[in-house]
Amino acid sequence: MVIGIIGLGLIGGSFAKDLRGEPWTDRIIGVDNNSDHAKRARELGLVDELVELPQLMSEAEVILLAIPVDGIVALLPSLLDRVSEKQTVIDLGSTKRAVVEAVRGHARRSRYVAAHPMAGTENSGPDAALSGLFKGKVVLLCNLEDSAPDACRMALQIFHSVGLRFEFMPAEQHDRHAAYVSHLSHVVSYALSLAVQTEEKAGYAVPRLAGGGFASTVRLAKSQPEMWVPIFLLNADEVLPAIDSFLMEMHRFRDALAAQDPAGIRNLIATANQIRELLK
Amino acid sequence: MVIGIIGLGLIGGSFAKDLRGEPWTDRIIGVDNNSDHAKRARELGLVDELVELPQLMSEAEVILLAIPVDGIVALLPSLLDRVSEKQTVIDLGSTKRAVVEAVRGHARRSRYVAAHPMAGTENSGPDAALSGLFKGKVVLLCNLEDSAPDACRMALQIFHSVGLRFEFMPAEQHDRHAAYVSHLSHVVSYALSLAVQTEEKAGYAVPRLAGGGFASTVRLAKSQPEMWVPIFLLNADEVLPAIDSFLMEMHRFRDALAAQDPAGIRNLIATANQIRELLK
Repeated sequence: MVIGIIGLGLIGGSFAKDLRGEPWTDRIIGVDNNSDHAKRARELGLVDELVELPQLMSEAEVILLAIPVDGIVALLPSLLDRVSEKQTVIDLGSTKRAVVEAVRGHARRSRYVAAHPMAGTENSGPDAALSGLFKGKVVLLCNLEDSAPDACRMALQIFHSVGLRFEFMPAEQHDRHAAYVSHLSHVVSYALSLAVQTEEKAGYAVPRLAGGGFASTVRLAKSQPEMWVPIFLLNADEVLPAIDSFLMEMHRFRDALAAQDPAGIRNLIATANQIRELLK
Repeated sequence: MVIGIIGLGLIGGSFAKDLRGEPWTDRIIGVDNNSDHAKRARELGLVDELVELPQLMSEAEVILLAIPVDGIVALLPSLLDRVSEKQTVIDLGSTKRAVVEAVRGHARRSRYVAAHPMAGTENSGPDAALSGLFKGKVVLLCNLEDSAPDACRMALQIFHSVGLRFEFMPAEQHDRHAAYVSHLSHVVSYALSLAVQTEEKAGYAVPRLAGGGFASTVRLAKSQPEMWVPIFLLNADEVLPAIDSFLMEMHRFRDALAAQDPAGIRNLIATANQIRELLK
């Protein structure tokens, strides 16, 4: 079959790499608004052909939508306007409630599957695409009761073939969990980067002294605004309470330290250590 | 020569593994207050012999002090009471001001070298010891003007042999930089773990949904209180302002998000992204 990918960056490009080897993949065609990214994706062999959006919509049996979530919200309704009963559109965005709301009640809603593969890196663009990026990771599938059974099967076939494990939940629940296990980590990492850059202006300490611990904690601060500004804005209802919950814990820690309270600090650390049991 | 290691955990054990192969290493002897750790270090072959502290102090030419910083502050003066002009004591603690103050003016101060190898993992104990842990990392050497030239040479020989690169600075400056590039990351990671555990009580989301981004940001939250409570308490003067600087950035981010201000969020993220240039 013909696979159409809209957005040939880290996520779209990584799907292209992994789907390339499937016996049922006849051709992969793609679109990217960024002409440098489009050209580079073709050079890297991620797609067989760069096309315009109307051609992609007429030729592809399955369409993967791998662009920032504000773009998904804006584009998805018009894609569904053109989709046939034999095509499936799958979005791969990092928030889900705003996307499903954008097509609620659409005549072709059932041709659309809402998904979020929880995998990625801090890099972006076609050069960041990686074979095996999704292997063993989780894809959250949301509101499948609104998708046609054959569209669901198509999505599961695509995700299974790249090694993703399935979890199913309503879009609202997805957005709440994602705020805690993904979006909050990014806010925290950005703020850490900002604080360290402000205090270490001379640029001396970070390149010379920072070890693996700092690098690990600040890694997500390399993630680009094109993807992340829309995620935060569209999921602000969940991200703001997550930030507040985190700030409360920071203040508990700060208070215990300001009071030179060893037992208080020890209790906080010992509880924090329990993340070991949850993250094996 | 005979190398004595006090504290046979991650750091002491990793030094033992790497120093084992040097032609000038005749024997490695060790002490650990935790009898399980001591026994395990012997089983793993980290040390040739487990000894009591007086024997270690009489036999070892160089003594590596690899215990939590509160232990270093408490023990170092009495070690210097017993040290000869031919022996060198090197501490490997993560804060330096409190340690050098503990032996300021000591008759044998010159036999002591203050150092902090900026390497480690979130694990602890002899089983966490790793060959090559220090390769390419930085060791900060503090207040070397207070150490005898031959003691400095001994420290440089030890650190060079395990692949550490040298940086030199006063203990106060070390503690300030360490607050930003190491200690703050730990506080942030602990608070992230606490917030996520509080909000995800059922234990559902973290093991099933968390991807590599969350794992990276929360990794340091696995670090144990035995090491970290003393670091925070002894470096509170630097860690508290670092926390406050970080909290200010969190609030700037929160305010921009609460105001649904795309340009504001974009500016914060774009500035945070500059950590790419500092952390190559």
